Amino acid sequence: MKQNKYDDDVFFSKYSKMRRSREGLEGAGEWHELVKMLPDFHGKRVLDLGCGFGWHCQYALDYGARSVTGVDISEKMLLEAKARTSPVIRYICLPMEDIDFPADSFDVVISSLAFHYVQFFKDIVGKVAACLSSHGEFVFSVEHPIFTACGTQDWHYDGQGNRLHWPVDQYFTESKRDARFLGESVTKYHRTLTTYVSNLLELGFEVTGLVEPTPPEDWLHTVSGMSDELRRPMMLLISGKRKS
Amino acid sequence: MKQNKYDDDVFFSKYSKMRRSREGLEGAGEWHELVKMLPDFHGKRVLDLGCGFGWHCQYALDYGARSVTGVDISEKMLLEAKARTSPVIRYICLPMEDIDFPADSFDVVISSLAFHYVQFFKDIVGKVAACLSSHGEFVFSVEHPIFTACGTQDWHYDGQGNRLHWPVDQYFTESKRDARFLGESVTKYHRTLTTYVSNLLELGFEVTGLVEPTPPEDWLHTVSGMSDELRRPMMLLISGKRKS
Repeated sequence: MKQNKYDDDVFFSKYSKMRRSREGLEGAGEWHELVKMLPDFHGKRVLDLGCGFGWHCQYALDYGARSVTGVDISEKMLLEAKARTSPVIRYICLPMEDIDFPADSFDVVISSLAFHYVQFFKDIVGKVAACLSSHGEFVFSVEHPIFTACGTQDWHYDGQGNRLHWPVDQYFTESKRDARFLGESVTKYHRTLTTYVSNLLELGFEVTGLVEPTPPEDWLHTVSGMSDELRRPMMLLISGKRKS
Repeated sequence: MKQNKYDDDVFFSKYSKMRRSREGLEGAGEWHELVKMLPDFHGKRVLDLGCGFGWHCQYALDYGARSVTGVDISEKMLLEAKARTSPVIRYICLPMEDIDFPADSFDVVISSLAFHYVQFFKDIVGKVAACLSSHGEFVFSVEHPIFTACGTQDWHYDGQGNRLHWPVDQYFTESKRDARFLGESVTKYHRTLTTYVSNLLELGFEVTGLVEPTPPEDWLHTVSGMSDELRRPMMLLISGKRKS
């Protein structure tokens, strides 16, 4: 059973209130790093896996993509995407695990913070490789393995509620985690950095970039608690290119 | 001032008693993974940075290297290396930061658990790139950024002395850490995974492998406390290849 948490009314409502949902790309703390890793979209056929509200789809279109396809399991997300973004973007309501595009369908595949909801990463990479053009590019972000390892996704506190440090445990146990996100219970899948990188290499990708983003400099001074984001990595951004 | 902790009598004596010092490669918990990442040494000119007792130098020689050079800052380490390994291996007593070999001096550069003692990783990568042959290979291990982040290099315990989890803090603060190793104070340098990988990419390497090793299966059952090694990554192994 593939998880469709974003069609849950309460969760969706909370997600819609997040800064990244309201403000789009500029409201996402990792965007300033992710954007540097994106290829030139001009004339490219672009696929976005787990496209959500369609912010990245619209960006690709704005920057010259010839065609853009967004895939998401959640009907609610896609309704929002259709309302907010260009009608030329093709949205498909489908679990990303079920994509089955013909060879050479896309020149660029992107995915933002979606793969940690997927149990079998290697299968996804295989499907991406299968539908990408020769030397096609693949850029994605996920929650960092250090962030997903414990499962609780919270700091370790002292008796006074101060954040002492970030706890890591069960790192090499790759499996489901019952995480808390927006006060709700959400299933995520923890996997190691080794798995993320090795699966890409094994399936014929060259790793062209790997970045653990820190927040934009001005957020550190203006957003409460943001300096704690320098204490542990929360996200992992990887870019790759098909070697043949 | 480059650190030469291994010429400290007490530290050296303790280091010499470690399983990896007494037993060599088979006594090192990461060797079974590192060995898979090493290239075919046959006919190659090999450099080992921070060669210590010379175990990896001897391995390269045993597996067909045409010539082997080991560099280490510690005279004590090199005395041991000379006593234990083949006289055809050339040992140079020098901080690895000071190497200055001509272009195309080596086909393979290896380094085992030494770069976390070095302040400027990118400088080392530049020097490695400069002396490697075209498409030359570079394989190294370091302590994992998750292991070096806090500096204390110890678990977080409960009141009864149980290991609760591994603490992570100051992850994005790349600087010196006063670590405890073998009960002694040792200076190490923490840097992020981003830095390790990005520096390699920036200096013209393709990343061909990235592994966070777990202990050999049989150690988990025979060595006390070894199962805790599955709770957090301790080492990071990376292999790369000059792209031109």
